[in-house]
Amino acid sequence: MRTHYCGAVRREHLEQVVTLYGWVDRRRDHGGVIFIDLRDRSGIVQIVSDPERTPTAYLVADSLRNEYVVKIQGRVTQRPEASLNPRLPTGDIEIYADHIELLNAVQQQLPFQVSTAESESVREDLRLKYRYLDLRRERMRSNMNLRTQVIQTLRRYLEDQQGFMEIETPVLTRSTPEGARDYLVPSRVNPGEWFALPQSPQLFKQLLMVAGFDRYYQIARCFRDEDLRADRQPEFTQLDMEMSFMSQEEILALNEELICHLFKAVKGMDLPRPFPRLTYTESMARYGTDRPDTRFGLELVDVSDLFASSGFKVFANAIAQGGVVKVLSIPGGNAAISNVRIKPGGDLFQEASEGGAKGLAYIRVRDHSDIDTIGAIKDNLTPEHKAELLARTGAQSGDLLLFGADTTAIVNASLARLRLGVGHELQLIDAEKTNLLWITDFPLFEWNNDEQRLEALHHPFTAPHPEDLGDLKTARSQAYDLVYNGLEIGGGSLRIYQSDIQEQVFAAIGLSYEETHNKFGFLLEAFKYGTPPHGGIAYGLDRLVMLLAGEESIRDTIPFPKTQQARCLLTQAPASVDLKQLKELHIASKFSSETR
Amino acid sequence: MRTHYCGAVRREHLEQVVTLYGWVDRRRDHGGVIFIDLRDRSGIVQIVSDPERTPTAYLVADSLRNEYVVKIQGRVTQRPEASLNPRLPTGDIEIYADHIELLNAVQQQLPFQVSTAESESVREDLRLKYRYLDLRRERMRSNMNLRTQVIQTLRRYLEDQQGFMEIETPVLTRSTPEGARDYLVPSRVNPGEWFALPQSPQLFKQLLMVAGFDRYYQIARCFRDEDLRADRQPEFTQLDMEMSFMSQEEILALNEELICHLFKAVKGMDLPRPFPRLTYTESMARYGTDRPDTRFGLELVDVSDLFASSGFKVFANAIAQGGVVKVLSIPGGNAAISNVRIKPGGDLFQEASEGGAKGLAYIRVRDHSDIDTIGAIKDNLTPEHKAELLARTGAQSGDLLLFGADTTAIVNASLARLRLGVGHELQLIDAEKTNLLWITDFPLFEWNNDEQRLEALHHPFTAPHPEDLGDLKTARSQAYDLVYNGLEIGGGSLRIYQSDIQEQVFAAIGLSYEETHNKFGFLLEAFKYGTPPHGGIAYGLDRLVMLLAGEESIRDTIPFPKTQQARCLLTQAPASVDLKQLKELHIASKFSSETR
Repeated sequence: MRTHYCGAVRREHLEQVVTLYGWVDRRRDHGGVIFIDLRDRSGIVQIVSDPERTPTAYLVADSLRNEYVVKIQGRVTQRPEASLNPRLPTGDIEIYADHIELLNAVQQQLPFQVSTAESESVREDLRLKYRYLDLRRERMRSNMNLRTQVIQTLRRYLEDQQGFMEIETPVLTRSTPEGARDYLVPSRVNPGEWFALPQSPQLFKQLLMVAGFDRYYQIARCFRDEDLRADRQPEFTQLDMEMSFMSQEEILALNEELICHLFKAVKGMDLPRPFPRLTYTESMARYGTDRPDTRFGLELVDVSDLFASSGFKVFANAIAQGGVVKVLSIPGGNAAISNVRIKPGGDLFQEASEGGAKGLAYIRVRDHSDIDTIGAIKDNLTPEHKAELLARTGAQSGDLLLFGADTTAIVNASLARLRLGVGHELQLIDAEKTNLLWITDFPLFEWNNDEQRLEALHHPFTAPHPEDLGDLKTARSQAYDLVYNGLEIGGGSLRIYQSDIQEQVFAAIGLSYEETHNKFGFLLEAFKYGTPPHGGIAYGLDRLVMLLAGEESIRDTIPFPKTQQARCLLTQAPASVDLKQLKELHIASKFSSETR
Repeated sequence: MRTHYCGAVRREHLEQVVTLYGWVDRRRDHGGVIFIDLRDRSGIVQIVSDPERTPTAYLVADSLRNEYVVKIQGRVTQRPEASLNPRLPTGDIEIYADHIELLNAVQQQLPFQVSTAESESVREDLRLKYRYLDLRRERMRSNMNLRTQVIQTLRRYLEDQQGFMEIETPVLTRSTPEGARDYLVPSRVNPGEWFALPQSPQLFKQLLMVAGFDRYYQIARCFRDEDLRADRQPEFTQLDMEMSFMSQEEILALNEELICHLFKAVKGMDLPRPFPRLTYTESMARYGTDRPDTRFGLELVDVSDLFASSGFKVFANAIAQGGVVKVLSIPGGNAAISNVRIKPGGDLFQEASEGGAKGLAYIRVRDHSDIDTIGAIKDNLTPEHKAELLARTGAQSGDLLLFGADTTAIVNASLARLRLGVGHELQLIDAEKTNLLWITDFPLFEWNNDEQRLEALHHPFTAPHPEDLGDLKTARSQAYDLVYNGLEIGGGSLRIYQSDIQEQVFAAIGLSYEETHNKFGFLLEAFKYGTPPHGGIAYGLDRLVMLLAGEESIRDTIPFPKTQQARCLLTQAPASVDLKQLKELHIASKFSSETR
């Protein structure tokens, strides 16, 4: 039996005989003496095999190659002064191997180097196909350890400090209305009927509140059949929480404590509390987005009033049609950003158009408040308006003003993209900063132009703001998102807990009485049997671990992820199945006929 | 904000003002003074509302009915001597309510009584339809608390005492070959291809061993689309474990420590260690089953040799055809069990035939070793054989011998059923006993008569016994099951970790080279890159909690279970879906055309 993990052997074990198991990370032959870096999940330790001191073990050592699996017994010895390795936790010692047993060899060429001594960058498709080898490498090993630590820390805080109960909710269930497509599962014993995999445990956790389990959490697997996007996974993990009898303030406070506890445990970092807050309205006004990166300024400034009656029709018309003119003032932008980049075909123009903008007007501020821009803007700007524009943006000589003029949504989306891009380019973002903030007071609904109806901005169980019950259509909700350096890591809300208000919300989003009662009758009925006020939140764990690990893809935080094409390169799932299986499920694939 | 849970208020809080939230469990009007049993997930506390002391609160108290949700503030007070309730943890105190706030009322007749004061038995379909109310009741509340405690205890022991890492494995994956049917999930973005929901994380946990995470566990959701059986669920939860570099002995020892720790934590019970063990062969010989209830004797005795050349052809022929004659000796069976029950149409005959028996021969032992039975047996039994039969079974005057004579499988199955039934009926089973035992040395394969091929008794990744590598077809495996009072609660094995042995096993169960490499090529390849020796186990958590709770159905241990028809009575899943959804998934339902 193992006596120690490799990475745990220390000077305090000197002269002890230890038994270790692991993989040959590297083997070096130093003129007759063989050194083996032995690796297990905890780290690395140096094994020495000397033909004079341990002749039998030496023969085995000589035959070992990278990634062979071995059992090693030997005595912990002080390293000679010249071989001390302060970068290695085990760098003070080495182990003279008395016995080496080969447990399993490598039988074909490794697709890539595994050793911690290698920093070779490996193609992601190879890493995913041979995930079991990728997981042996330092980077993924450390990410998996972090993931395990994050989940354990969250669990224990919620259980021990806050009295939460972990309760499991079904995976085979009914479609939950979270906006994305469901994964469906045909029922064999109930022909013609289908389960759906949950997009979240939303309805069940609310029912658990009705059931009286007033503090629930779950590390919950969730499923969304989304169109292929950069960093989404068909299945992902969230920390899912729900609480009864708590106000929004109390819920936010509890969650700040949770997050602070996590950062302290995992990063040794003391986050200041309370976290800053922005209302949705203010966040959109100042940053053009509801997940602002507040590690830098470069805020959007609304200058609609200065251009409402301007002779520059592009601006005036946008305002006349209910839109806005907003501006981003880039310090030193004149030197950093050329006209070519701003004009059609340029990268900044492209960035703005991906936000929906049709053009990108600009002003360059020169000495003595002179400005350079196209004539149509310059000629239509009164000295008073120019002065006010410079005062309001704080623009100085050398600064570049970029304008958005369109609907509020397009202006915000375009300028928010520009702000982030420019912020990165000009290194305005302090990578050392950890900014967490709450966005609150979201609108309850947003207009879905495709379907010509209101839809819930979060989901239809979100409680309206109590001051806005008079007109639900324009109401704020009691929803809140937690944003971490510009990425949403959690979101939640107080929930509706009265069946009449729930029915009004279903009606507002265009659900008929029949649809409502067919899909959600059980929830409306549950609300009639003594439902407590409640609310909750869910955190995207894959993304949270990604941010804590400093990774850029959630695939690097998931043990066995799928590609952006929703495929597992290791097992080759999804795959074809026997016709017999489909027949038993009372279904047929239409794919072959589609492609004919 | 709540200051205390209801069930946690004690004499030490006397004179404190507390804020409680909960449900009205019961409301009693004692001539002007109203008593409310206030309930939350922790228990019950008595609230008093006196119109003279607290007139405003009294008006609210007067309007309350069962299951109303309320917030209560008041002072903790000593109960008068006459009202002390030693059966209630809060029975020393009561709370004079200064403020009562109604948070939500009950708006329609409850489908059943929820109060802890009610012991009404409720139909299961009603309980499942209104699961959120059922979960408020004492029984389910206590079962859910136990489930949470069991899972927390297991997690923490494995993490803190044994260095296990919790690692998540995919739910959308490839078919795993565990013998049952898979639930399938059509892929939208990979038309004509399917994910399967995992029957267990078997392959992924083995790959985690290849990846070097040498101690893995997971509370894993598993899925089996089985035919409807008494106590199966389409989705269930297992404690899934896998370990590298450990012998079978070491794995069993670690698991005994885990189980002992659990019983100590949950039941305060010290289980003796090591757990007893039976080989599969011995268990089948003595109990006719590989999951024997060893809380009582009534063992099967093989008497084939006494009847091999008997003139009673039923027995002699069974033996001649390779079968056996075994007997169950029932103490006092003459008085307890009438002939009618043993003969065709009787309940014991029926029990035996459900095990496959075509008849049920018997002998009644009388005084002075006289026997009563049919002439064909009696006339063909020599005095020596009779004496040997009585000696071997230990049968005394008044005892009843029941015989099985058929193939070994049928005799074992029939007599095992009779043994259990009679054991219960004659109250031979000591319900206070907790018998845990290991069954070991299972056969590697069993013969599947339908498909005319060998199949893996556990699964095809189970390692053969090292002494039996010469002939895999008859080999024992290194598998082990943990049996708790006659129910299997866990099972596992050492795994194959060499690709050549794995290929031999696939060949032995009739998989072609092509099938093997198409389905398991990735596993065989993984085994070539330095795979450690490893093994594991999985426990059925729903069943384990059921046994610890003293329940008889796993549905009573799962928060939101499905019926035996694989249906959720609460949400009405599975349900029909829009044709549009099926079209996007490139599939069609054949059900309507099937039924036409």
